[in-house]
Amino acid sequence: MTSRQARKSIPKDGVSLWAPVNARVRDRERKRDAVILVAARAFRERGYHNTSLDDIASELNVTKPTVYHYVANKEQLLFECFRAGLHQIMEAFEEIRNSNEDARTRLAAVVTRYAEAITSDFGWCMVQAENQDLSPAMSRKVKALKSEIDQGIRQLLKEGIADGSIRDCDAKMAAFAIAGALNWIAHWYRSDEPLTAAQIAERYLQLFELGLRPR
Amino acid sequence: MTSRQARKSIPKDGVSLWAPVNARVRDRERKRDAVILVAARAFRERGYHNTSLDDIASELNVTKPTVYHYVANKEQLLFECFRAGLHQIMEAFEEIRNSNEDARTRLAAVVTRYAEAITSDFGWCMVQAENQDLSPAMSRKVKALKSEIDQGIRQLLKEGIADGSIRDCDAKMAAFAIAGALNWIAHWYRSDEPLTAAQIAERYLQLFELGLRPR
Repeated sequence: MTSRQARKSIPKDGVSLWAPVNARVRDRERKRDAVILVAARAFRERGYHNTSLDDIASELNVTKPTVYHYVANKEQLLFECFRAGLHQIMEAFEEIRNSNEDARTRLAAVVTRYAEAITSDFGWCMVQAENQDLSPAMSRKVKALKSEIDQGIRQLLKEGIADGSIRDCDAKMAAFAIAGALNWIAHWYRSDEPLTAAQIAERYLQLFELGLRPR
Repeated sequence: MTSRQARKSIPKDGVSLWAPVNARVRDRERKRDAVILVAARAFRERGYHNTSLDDIASELNVTKPTVYHYVANKEQLLFECFRAGLHQIMEAFEEIRNSNEDARTRLAAVVTRYAEAITSDFGWCMVQAENQDLSPAMSRKVKALKSEIDQGIRQLLKEGIADGSIRDCDAKMAAFAIAGALNWIAHWYRSDEPLTAAQIAERYLQLFELGLRPR
């Protein structure tokens, strides 16, 4: 490129000069997301211990060093799959943060997103990550993130008891029961399940909200 | 022993002659139960793949061939641990079979026994057995037993909808939610948990029966 051409290619606002850099970052993120998604599917289908980074590289049509470009090791890859799933639930908490609706309605929104996350490709890793003989450091990271979700649900239950939208109950036990019911979806859900995640969430919410006893 | 002594030792009713045989059977059953219990604790504490039959033999203070006297291999041992836990739930279904109470009350009895089973030494194996890369044949046996429990809960829900003790609901989804909440107890329950299994069951039943919405 001549200096004249280079000058000509400078956009008037100057800002979009950095676009190629942004694009590279986006490209790297997209590729990293692809590595995580392919890994999540492989772990779910064949199990974590039966899946090697070689398998994942070969499915992505890249070399193993390319995979190492995005994650340090297989354990970190499992953690990223776990985090990708949990991220969807975290986002739900983010979205309701400034809502004016009562806590029961906000909890319902989180439950629905939770069901969507657990039926996604990341569902298996969300539930199984902690059972894979993780290193103590990684195990702590997994537990910390899970605890954040658990505390978020408990907090919503407590707010609901305070604002009158939720019956007085043991928030800790109710949070465990709700998260347990949702996590267990990963055990029975198959891609040919006739109900969508939203429909499963709707039925679960009916149980959690109305209970079994006729009104 | 002389023939006179032998004659003298024959009890008058003749029946108790077989007692030693019964006692041997009972003794064998007790020892087998001990093998299964020690294995269940070892699997829960160290994980299935990190526990060898040598470890279990050494904890029982016996040789590995002695362990093989009771189970064919480690996989069968895991299955026996799984079955020992499920057996407690099966017993609960047995006990309510001839009850005259409404289906919601009978379901509550099963939920309580389920919580007791899942907080027992066998809880981990009940929930984790299917995640241990079992042979296809063993995997089918595990799934068949789990399905029996699932169908039992669904049946109670349907009977409750029919007898009016349970609100009309999607019995399949409600059964999954209830079993999921109960199974998940194995993930968070620790032996130092301040609530007893019965107290946990009571709080879970309040959620399942009354729901979160104030009445």
